[in-house]
Order: sequence, then C-alpha cells, then structure tokens
Amino acid sequence: MKIAIDAMGGDNAPKEIVLGAMKAVEAFSDLQIILVGDENKINETLTRHDRISVIHTTDVILGTDEPVRAVRRKKNASMVLAAQQVADGLADACLSAGNTGALMASGLFIVGRIDGIDRPALAPTLPTIGGEGFLLLDVGANADAKPEHLLQYAIMGSIYCQKVRGITSPRIGLLNIGTEEKKGNELTKHAFELLKTANLNFIGNVEARDLLNGPADVVVTDGFTGNMVLKTIEGTALSMFKMLKTTLMSSFKTKLAAAVLKPNLMELKNTLDYSEYGGAALFGLKAPVIKAHGSSNAQAIFSAVRQTREMAANSVVSLIKQTIEETKQ
Amino acid sequence: MKIAIDAMGGDNAPKEIVLGAMKAVEAFSDLQIILVGDENKINETLTRHDRISVIHTTDVILGTDEPVRAVRRKKNASMVLAAQQVADGLADACLSAGNTGALMASGLFIVGRIDGIDRPALAPTLPTIGGEGFLLLDVGANADAKPEHLLQYAIMGSIYCQKVRGITSPRIGLLNIGTEEKKGNELTKHAFELLKTANLNFIGNVEARDLLNGPADVVVTDGFTGNMVLKTIEGTALSMFKMLKTTLMSSFKTKLAAAVLKPNLMELKNTLDYSEYGGAALFGLKAPVIKAHGSSNAQAIFSAVRQTREMAANSVVSLIKQTIEETKQ
Repeated sequence: MKIAIDAMGGDNAPKEIVLGAMKAVEAFSDLQIILVGDENKINETLTRHDRISVIHTTDVILGTDEPVRAVRRKKNASMVLAAQQVADGLADACLSAGNTGALMASGLFIVGRIDGIDRPALAPTLPTIGGEGFLLLDVGANADAKPEHLLQYAIMGSIYCQKVRGITSPRIGLLNIGTEEKKGNELTKHAFELLKTANLNFIGNVEARDLLNGPADVVVTDGFTGNMVLKTIEGTALSMFKMLKTTLMSSFKTKLAAAVLKPNLMELKNTLDYSEYGGAALFGLKAPVIKAHGSSNAQAIFSAVRQTREMAANSVVSLIKQTIEETKQ
Repeated sequence: MKIAIDAMGGDNAPKEIVLGAMKAVEAFSDLQIILVGDENKINETLTRHDRISVIHTTDVILGTDEPVRAVRRKKNASMVLAAQQVADGLADACLSAGNTGALMASGLFIVGRIDGIDRPALAPTLPTIGGEGFLLLDVGANADAKPEHLLQYAIMGSIYCQKVRGITSPRIGLLNIGTEEKKGNELTKHAFELLKTANLNFIGNVEARDLLNGPADVVVTDGFTGNMVLKTIEGTALSMFKMLKTTLMSSFKTKLAAAVLKPNLMELKNTLDYSEYGGAALFGLKAPVIKAHGSSNAQAIFSAVRQTREMAANSVVSLIKQTIEETKQ
C-alpha cells in the first residue's frame, strides 16, 4: 500500500504533514508513504526513512491560486506530482491539505474519473451531537447537479460507509426543505423518485435543521447546496463561539466562571471540530484522493492517512465502479 | 390604518396575539385592528374595544394542514378571513403567526400578486453578531427561481430596507459559494450579471460562512437555498445550546459556574432569537402580509404589528409596484 502525500499543502506544512506521515507508517506496517515537496524543509522534520521516500520539488500551489489554471500550469507543484504518482500507478492513493479546488482539479484531470461516473463529489464527514458523524456529499465539486448525479452520490456514499466505516446498511437521506415526499425543488423531487427505487437503504428527505442530530449516515445534495450548508454550520458555530467568548470575558465574575468551564468548553469545541473527523474524500475518481483540513496538525494528517489507507485497502473505488456499471445495465 | 390579524395562529394563540394587539393600539393612535377568530376565546383576554374589532369564526388552519388545500377548503378559517379583509379593501395589511405555507398561499390566492412580480418572496430578518440583522430572501415561497426573480427580490428588499429600516442605500449581496464574480451555479452566475447592472447598491457575492457577521443589509437567494441556510443556522444554534447545556450540567463544579453565567447566556440566546427581529414579510403581494414567528409572545406580536404598520404607512407595496414597472420598461 503506497500513499502519495502533498507535503507542502495546508497551514502547517510541511512540519505537521511529515509528523503525521511518520506516525502513520509507525502504526501501519503495510504502509509506504511518498512525501512530495521541498526536500530541505521536509528533512528538518523527517527522522525516519524506512517506508518513507521523498520526491523533491520547490513548486507549490497556493491557497490563493485559481484552481484549474494552477493545476494546468504548475506541472511540478507538490500536489500535482502527488496526483501524478497515482496516475502513473506508482501510488495507490493521494492526500493533500492544500487548495481544495486545485485538489479536485488534480483528481479530475490527472487521476481521472471512473467510467460511468458523470460528476465526482467531495464528501466530508460532518460532526453530530452524538459524535458518530455523517457523510455529506457533494459539498462543491460541482455547483450544478442532475437527479442522476444525486443517485450516484448516494451509491458512492453508501459503499464508503459500508467499507470504511463498517456500517452494514448505511441510511441514505436526501437533503430537502421538508420531510414529505412531494417537497422540494425540481432537482430533489426527481432525485427522490430515483432514490426510492434504487437498491439503497433510502430513508427519505432530511431537513437542514436536523443535520447535527445525525438523521442519516449519508446525506446527498447538489454541490451548491452542500457547500452552503457546510459553510453555514461552520459560520454559525464560529460566530457562536465568538459571542460566547465575548460573554465569558465581559466581567470579573464571568471570567472566573469561564476559567472553571474552560476544559468543558474546549471539549465542546472539539466535538464540532471537523478535523477530528478525518479528511474529505473525493468520490468518483479512479483512486482515492483525500483532502485533509487546511489547518491539519499531525494527528489530523494521521487520521486522514488512515482513512485513505482504508479506502484503498477495502477496494472502495473498484466496488463503486462495479456498482455503477450494474446500475446502468 | 387597519390591520387584520389572525388571532388563532401560532403556539400562544389567541392570548398572546390579543395582548400584542392591545399593546399596539395603545402605542399607535392611527391604528385599528381587526382580530379574526373565536370570539369567546378572544374575549377572555380582550379588555379594550376602541379601535379593536372582532370577526368571529371557529374555523382554523392547523400547523399540520397541507397549506394550499387548507386555504382552498377552509374558506372560514381565521387566516383566510384575515386575508379576505385585505382583498376586500377592508384592511390595509394582514398578519398571522400560523402555518407559514398557508399564509403564503393566502397571500398568493386571496391578496394577490403585484402585476409584474413573477414570484412572491418570504423575507425574514436574521440576527447578526452586531445586532443590526439582515434581510434574507427568498426562504421558501418558491423552491425554484430564475435569475430575474433574484433581481426582483433584490429590488423589493432594497425598498423595504429604505422605507422600513431607514437605510439610505441598502447593501445588496448575492448568496454564493465564493466571493469571486465567476463563482457559483448557473442561477447565481446569471443573477450576478443582472444585479451588477441594476440600479442597486450591489456589493457582490456573500458567503454563507459570513452571514452572521452581517456582510449586507439584504441577501438574495432562491427559496430552496434560503430555506436551507435559515434552517441550518437555526439547527446549528439550537444544537450548540443543547450541547452547551449538557456541558454546563455535567458536574457540580460546572453547575456552579453555569449559575453565575445564566443571565449572560440568556442574553446570548436572545441575540440569536429570531422573534426579536419581528416577522417575515411576504414581498410581491398587493398589500403587506406578515408572518410572525409561531412561538410569538405579546412582545413579538407587537413588533410584527409595528413592522406591518410601517410597511403600509411607508407605501412599500406601491413603491415596489412602481419600481418593477420602471425596471421592465
């Protein structure tokens, strides 16, 4: 099992990426890692070289780069070379904490789509109150979607949850503005019909209001709506913590109480922390491509590597390919 | 100025509705209110009869009723009769805290659309950290929208903010998945072009993540997305308060600290409480139709009546009509 990692992507690169990679090879004896990036910088942290190799490049895609253009022009960027390792059959999967759009473009143009998958989907695992989390897709690989795409998202999400999360019969929900069957816009009304008759554990519509209660294991939606919902959860949680902080710091009395509560509040914040739930998987590509959170530390990178390894080890991609072919027949 | 109020709509009807109505006629000497509902129940609370009249009916639309069917069949429901007062020219505007879908149907079928407005829009004012709030529309009057509808929403929202909130040049934002001009789905890309050239203070795309920071005075989006975002904010805030409560009640130590913080936390909860921001206006109808929050107390009803009165007094509807006509020329 070989995983190529963009060592230069994310806010804490390359140090935390390298530390996470070392932790992963320590934990998984079948794992080999290819770190792609500036060798000098990588070597400042890298203290073990068995099962970890380095491909040197100084070129890097920045968070501010226009994704498609950057992937097309920066042929030697660390992210592009990591994807190229997969395309060339030199790695089984790849991983980056860098520019999300550029990673999606790298996946699409370099790794390539599975035949029969019209649109890849970006699928993060979102937190829930109970802690189990749920898979939301698509959150922005494609802004516009057709009903058939939502069916494909459901199939891919269901296989992922079975194989990587060990859920026997993943509950599939359709994100909609009401729970009744006839609710929604043209897209969701048609998607409902397709999902209802598919060979899936489809539980019907789920509402945005209930998402954090974990009403389903997989929630499907178009990329525009998924992105909106994801950003709204993040924004609301962030705003509330900001307001809570202002409240707690408003007087001597509240500061004392806040000091008592600090460990509990940190725990609460962690429950809602996306990086605790691993990376976002790009589904529909010929090999696993995983986007780790931009602010990933070594532990988050370790989680994302484990997730990538499980996707590859459990043949998620070939099972998706096979199921899509069967569905089309 | 006459306002017809559905006295039977909402969780606290008719008591809090009647109390709110009495408070409003006390505050505004030009105001007359028509309460529509069960006279016996209304009279349990109603202690003043100058400038408040009652239209008796025992029929009522429930929260669980299918909206369109209920409005068509329950011709004597309190909500339907309140809208009929407006249609018959016996009231200048109407207000209900009942079934949102039924109120939209009542507005559309009984009060009627302004000529030239293709789709009415439901527009609540959402809370922001700074407390100023912003208008979001549409949040579900129509699940599907075309670019021209979003332009009409922007025009209506701008006029409302000028006339009712006293903002000279309301900032109009387009809800989108990125701030750059070329971002989005087909709908938002085309809407951006229309908004850019319109006679509006269009500030470009705004992201869901920033909404609670108040990036614009009016944020336009299609009803499906708007409903998603609204429900996601509500759901996330609710989930966080639930988790916070669990955290605060987890030990003797945290309970003590929680007791100290209680007033501050209640204040924080109120900042995010929609009912503090008045009702949601239905734009594009021939008269103001306002939806008060289902859980409205007397104070919330009073706020919603004030808002309705200001819409009517400042000729928001005729100004919308005039501007839409000019835009179409």
